[in-house]
Amino acid sequence: MNRLRSSRRGLLAAAGGLVASAGVQVAARAAPDAAVAKLPATTEAFWGDHQAGITTKQQSHCYFAAFDLTTEKRDDVIALLKTWTNAAARLTAGQTAEPMGTDHDAPGPDSADALGLSPARLTITFGFGPGLFVKDGKDRYGLAGSRPDALIDLPRFNGDQMVAEKTDGDLSIQACADDPQVAFHAVRQLARLSYDAADLRWSQTGFTSPPADGSTTRNLMGFKDGTQSPPDVAKAVWVGDDGPVWMRGGSYLVVRRIRMALEHWDRTKVSFQEQTFGRQKYSGAPLGLKGEFEPLGLDRTDADENPIIPENAHVRLGNAAANGAAEILRRGYSYNDGVNFTAERWPPWRQGMEYDAGLLFLCYQTDPRTGFVKLFEKMAKFDMLNQFVTHTGGGLFAIPAGIRQGEYVGQRLFEKA
Amino acid sequence: MNRLRSSRRGLLAAAGGLVASAGVQVAARAAPDAAVAKLPATTEAFWGDHQAGITTKQQSHCYFAAFDLTTEKRDDVIALLKTWTNAAARLTAGQTAEPMGTDHDAPGPDSADALGLSPARLTITFGFGPGLFVKDGKDRYGLAGSRPDALIDLPRFNGDQMVAEKTDGDLSIQACADDPQVAFHAVRQLARLSYDAADLRWSQTGFTSPPADGSTTRNLMGFKDGTQSPPDVAKAVWVGDDGPVWMRGGSYLVVRRIRMALEHWDRTKVSFQEQTFGRQKYSGAPLGLKGEFEPLGLDRTDADENPIIPENAHVRLGNAAANGAAEILRRGYSYNDGVNFTAERWPPWRQGMEYDAGLLFLCYQTDPRTGFVKLFEKMAKFDMLNQFVTHTGGGLFAIPAGIRQGEYVGQRLFEKA
Repeated sequence: MNRLRSSRRGLLAAAGGLVASAGVQVAARAAPDAAVAKLPATTEAFWGDHQAGITTKQQSHCYFAAFDLTTEKRDDVIALLKTWTNAAARLTAGQTAEPMGTDHDAPGPDSADALGLSPARLTITFGFGPGLFVKDGKDRYGLAGSRPDALIDLPRFNGDQMVAEKTDGDLSIQACADDPQVAFHAVRQLARLSYDAADLRWSQTGFTSPPADGSTTRNLMGFKDGTQSPPDVAKAVWVGDDGPVWMRGGSYLVVRRIRMALEHWDRTKVSFQEQTFGRQKYSGAPLGLKGEFEPLGLDRTDADENPIIPENAHVRLGNAAANGAAEILRRGYSYNDGVNFTAERWPPWRQGMEYDAGLLFLCYQTDPRTGFVKLFEKMAKFDMLNQFVTHTGGGLFAIPAGIRQGEYVGQRLFEKA
Repeated sequence: MNRLRSSRRGLLAAAGGLVASAGVQVAARAAPDAAVAKLPATTEAFWGDHQAGITTKQQSHCYFAAFDLTTEKRDDVIALLKTWTNAAARLTAGQTAEPMGTDHDAPGPDSADALGLSPARLTITFGFGPGLFVKDGKDRYGLAGSRPDALIDLPRFNGDQMVAEKTDGDLSIQACADDPQVAFHAVRQLARLSYDAADLRWSQTGFTSPPADGSTTRNLMGFKDGTQSPPDVAKAVWVGDDGPVWMRGGSYLVVRRIRMALEHWDRTKVSFQEQTFGRQKYSGAPLGLKGEFEPLGLDRTDADENPIIPENAHVRLGNAAANGAAEILRRGYSYNDGVNFTAERWPPWRQGMEYDAGLLFLCYQTDPRTGFVKLFEKMAKFDMLNQFVTHTGGGLFAIPAGIRQGEYVGQRLFEKA
């Protein structure tokens, strides 16, 4: 098949000899190599020491997907990761997943729904779940010995209502972009390229709407979310020399699909919402203080020597330093999957159609044992916010180091093992 | 309770006497009346001869919601519509749903998640389903005699797989905005204000990503969608003097949640996709022609006198003029609800996790009997595209005329009856 290198915009020139209609650019975009050299503002670099999409300025949309590996062959996994790497490099540069051909009597090498769209700062972040190393006790790919200690099986936390169809996965892809169609398009191409080796297990869309004035984004509970970030992001996120070589410069991603009881929340007094969070709703300031960015002051007490920020307030239990945990980098999105039938776990015990909406919580860290797990074991038991949220899905994924040009994602894992 | 008029941005000044943090504007936005006089570019007019959100330039996001009325009292319905009208006027002007109070020991009058966000060209379009007039044979509100002839019970079409939890409704709200959080926020406030009279029945998010160069938007099948629009939009959409008075200047909305078998589609030859649509995939031109905007030329034949655009091609069967139907205005969005377990209805009969993604089809017309129903009865039987799509939900809603300031939506219906 005579395949031509072509970009999304250059496609019309290549497709079946069609004459491009007025206004369509026919000059092919730069090939990936050249694209890295001078990136337009709508493009994020794909190759590097770290995978993009972790410390990258957060895009407005996310499509997260987890896959089950269906092949039993190590070579198939390697082939898939090579294919994914090549396609991801193209997609993040605003190109089609594979070069467009001239053969119309074959399935298209790209679903074409992102033709004409900007790369929209697309990032594609690959992850490896525990199932890549061991699944149902089986070492399918000879990788069992390479499973990092930090890639634990997440424990069941208090209150977890995890649905199998929205949980775990052998591989993960986090696609973020400033356009929901571009993010979905990316995962869809990668999923299509995996047909012989992997099946989509679950996926989740997400969005975030930061105010134009640069103030902190509010989550669906109406509170500012993201006021505090780790004082040293790189230290919080990137695995150092103590991990396996292939994970150095990588990270660990914990995903939680957190449904919010928004109807219940909307009927709750603002003063109680604020006690629950430990912050004021409108200003974002810690209870009793004036400014959003003031230190929490967790040891402040009132005249009766009661803590001003309650012992079970979200912000106290979620504070890494105060709970002996390592800092984590949160990168959450809101999700909105319409409504479905739900019975509430707490008063008013309402049953009926309720929003299936909330938070696609994504957080990165050097080690989930000292990060998310350490923090959340206590939060899951005591956080006042728990009566308004339910964790219904998620997973833990090792995020390999960044990919150098010519490499494929995870290459240092497979070549070592 | 001492309630203050305040806008989203002015909120901090009013909320509990908190001092606004740096960079926050404390000047309240203009009240609704003044806002109509000079609208910023991010605001669409709410009051007028027609409801907004129909011929309004399409926004990038949509949140559609349908409600069941739970009250048996006509006055409750009127009160709800008054409340909704007032709140919608505020929300579309970028304000909170209700004026913010200073009372923190009560639920907030707004969920606050859109504070600081632009109105994002929010439009709110209200609709009345058949159940407002007659439900289970009961005339709950004394409106049975006012049910328009055009507000039929939609027939079951060939291939329909309608799910009750995503179908019908006594009332509808279509919220469109250039920000998904603003669209959801609007419906959520209106739903909260309806707690005593109505329950959310179903809802659906949608998005559309038009290319920046102004070329036609592509749907998730990768084809351009929207090349043809009615030659006379006003004539296609607005009910004239032949309808009931309260519907003059109104319209009828048909909603269909159309799932696409994207995995199947992506494995289909491009040439067959093009035969199915009757258009070329990349240029959008009718089969055998060069330009996207050339007339379809449905009577063109090849050397063997076979039609170039097949008899069962989507564009031929969807063409109003060629099928004796009235023109309709399509205003569709893509939807993306992740993946779930599906058994395909056609070869390759695949079973497994598949995308629950496709088209939130919304179309407006003067009369569904001559518009959507006339067109779709034939399409549902013969359209080649049917093997790739399944209609899983939707409804029909009468969209009352526009609302004049001081009126509430549907007032002319209730005062007449």
